[in-house]
Amino acid sequence: MQTGCEWLRGTGPDAEIVVSSRIRLARNLAQFPFISRADEPTRNDLEKLLYEKLQDLPAGPRLSYFDVRNLSDLDRQFLMERQLISKELADGEGARGVAVDQGQSVSVMINEEDHLRMQVVRSGFSLDECWKDIDQLDDAIEEDVTYAFSEDLGYLTACPTNVGTGIRVSVMLHLPALHMTKEIQKVLGALQKISLAVRGLYGEGSSASGQFFQVSNQITLGQSEQQIIDKLHEVVPNIISYERRVREALLKDNRAKLHDQISRATGILQKAQTISSEETMDLLSSVRLGVSLGMLDDLDLLSVNELFIHTQPSHLQKIRGESLDSGERNAARAAYLRLRLAEA
Amino acid sequence: MQTGCEWLRGTGPDAEIVVSSRIRLARNLAQFPFISRADEPTRNDLEKLLYEKLQDLPAGPRLSYFDVRNLSDLDRQFLMERQLISKELADGEGARGVAVDQGQSVSVMINEEDHLRMQVVRSGFSLDECWKDIDQLDDAIEEDVTYAFSEDLGYLTACPTNVGTGIRVSVMLHLPALHMTKEIQKVLGALQKISLAVRGLYGEGSSASGQFFQVSNQITLGQSEQQIIDKLHEVVPNIISYERRVREALLKDNRAKLHDQISRATGILQKAQTISSEETMDLLSSVRLGVSLGMLDDLDLLSVNELFIHTQPSHLQKIRGESLDSGERNAARAAYLRLRLAEA
Repeated sequence: MQTGCEWLRGTGPDAEIVVSSRIRLARNLAQFPFISRADEPTRNDLEKLLYEKLQDLPAGPRLSYFDVRNLSDLDRQFLMERQLISKELADGEGARGVAVDQGQSVSVMINEEDHLRMQVVRSGFSLDECWKDIDQLDDAIEEDVTYAFSEDLGYLTACPTNVGTGIRVSVMLHLPALHMTKEIQKVLGALQKISLAVRGLYGEGSSASGQFFQVSNQITLGQSEQQIIDKLHEVVPNIISYERRVREALLKDNRAKLHDQISRATGILQKAQTISSEETMDLLSSVRLGVSLGMLDDLDLLSVNELFIHTQPSHLQKIRGESLDSGERNAARAAYLRLRLAEA
Repeated sequence: MQTGCEWLRGTGPDAEIVVSSRIRLARNLAQFPFISRADEPTRNDLEKLLYEKLQDLPAGPRLSYFDVRNLSDLDRQFLMERQLISKELADGEGARGVAVDQGQSVSVMINEEDHLRMQVVRSGFSLDECWKDIDQLDDAIEEDVTYAFSEDLGYLTACPTNVGTGIRVSVMLHLPALHMTKEIQKVLGALQKISLAVRGLYGEGSSASGQFFQVSNQITLGQSEQQIIDKLHEVVPNIISYERRVREALLKDNRAKLHDQISRATGILQKAQTISSEETMDLLSSVRLGVSLGMLDDLDLLSVNELFIHTQPSHLQKIRGESLDSGERNAARAAYLRLRLAEA
């Protein structure tokens, strides 16, 4: 689990702006009640059944299973920071777990809000690849179980907002230039009008920090999976080219100021002795822009993408091998950044 | 003139707090009117006479003479930044000049507000050495000329505030800890009550920037030179030990925060692509504190003291060998700091 995430590689299409693409499917088994109505023995049965299915898929990736009940708080938070489990699964009760592939690209949560929440994440703007992988995974699981499905509505889910396709298609965008010039407000307004949701780096309820914006579909009903994916394929390239145009304008009119900001960000990250998560995100965002613009030769997108994740609280505690309070984490974060950025 | 200033060495007594000690004497020749009342030919005569005296002193340092009339604006500013001439001499009109020794410790202005303004500057808390040097210089000059002197009043000067001894005794203090904790207000209040003046790094009219405070006597009449020097000898050690106590308290209670601030300051100075004079002073002040506290091993007081002077506008233009506007200076300042601090 300490090895690198596939989706942090920073090498997919448009990876300097699209950090990652993600598709998740919500599925429930026909012969079981929804989780919210399932008693303890039913949940246990569900977990056992689904765990065994996942261990024995006819095709698809080899998955390692984590029984979330048995994990420490730190390990749960660690999986959350890797975006492999949701807060709901981490904080939940009873039988539940997650199956994860080697590259941490595929994860399948059991007994979250739905019986199954499977996701595929990939580096860059790669929704087609995500869809291919998750569709295969979904088919492989379905060979052996019967999903709760209605001819009229489609897949039935615990929350009505997921009924139909049960799909959420999202891309994580790094939009520092639109943020800097406040053009981002126009983008957010336009996305809202066409019913696309915008969240922060850590999903629902998190604000967009460090100039990262997660754009996803809100509608799951009345459209096919492909239509939903196509909508993002239609909209996201416009955001990408908008961000690129503003970057070019900044380079043309404010190159010195931009270079100064980016260069100072590296200086602070290389020298701080204590630093909060928020400030780290902001400064790394500038550094990431610098790498994208070719202003920082000795760093690459993978390294910077990793720093966003590795400087999260539970990652720092894993690295240190001990529990750290907020002040200790800020010191550990600064020490880790100094080490990693001195190597660069 | 490009060689180092003796007073920047950073090696005198208490040099981590007392940047430099300075004594200046105001003198006028008995047989000439004050400068404000001297016509052009008289000023010319004065300059010629005093220039020749200074070239031919029976004892004392070898002095190089600069005819300020013939200097470019840039060179005048350069001498001001080195604290070898006053703004009044730089901006004045008519015959005037300055004689400077090799180490830039001794300077004698001719035809400033008074016929002669001589000063000795030394690194650290070294008023006795300053007095010894300037008293010798004064005697050497007086062997051959007659000063305007009254038995009742003492030395007569153009401005009544200098009558008597014509002496100004000052020390440049670096008081970042007192500044940081706002204790400095108490010090400034106390100094005012005992008629000591506080100015900034660049004398009269300049505000105390970068946490540097120039403390000097205001009274020149009714006290001997030694009494005036003794007063500073009495007061300054109290300020020094106050600053030291607050530094110790900060180290005890806020070491991490202090280390963070100092370390970040070096990071910004090492990486900025454009930086104003004010921000440079503030950050260098933190770096200077870091060196004093032994937190920055690879820098010494001399280097930091020099950076304060070498990042001044005319110094940057001298280094670049061209005239620079404000934006260009900010870029040149950042480039110079990157170079010097990368060496460190």
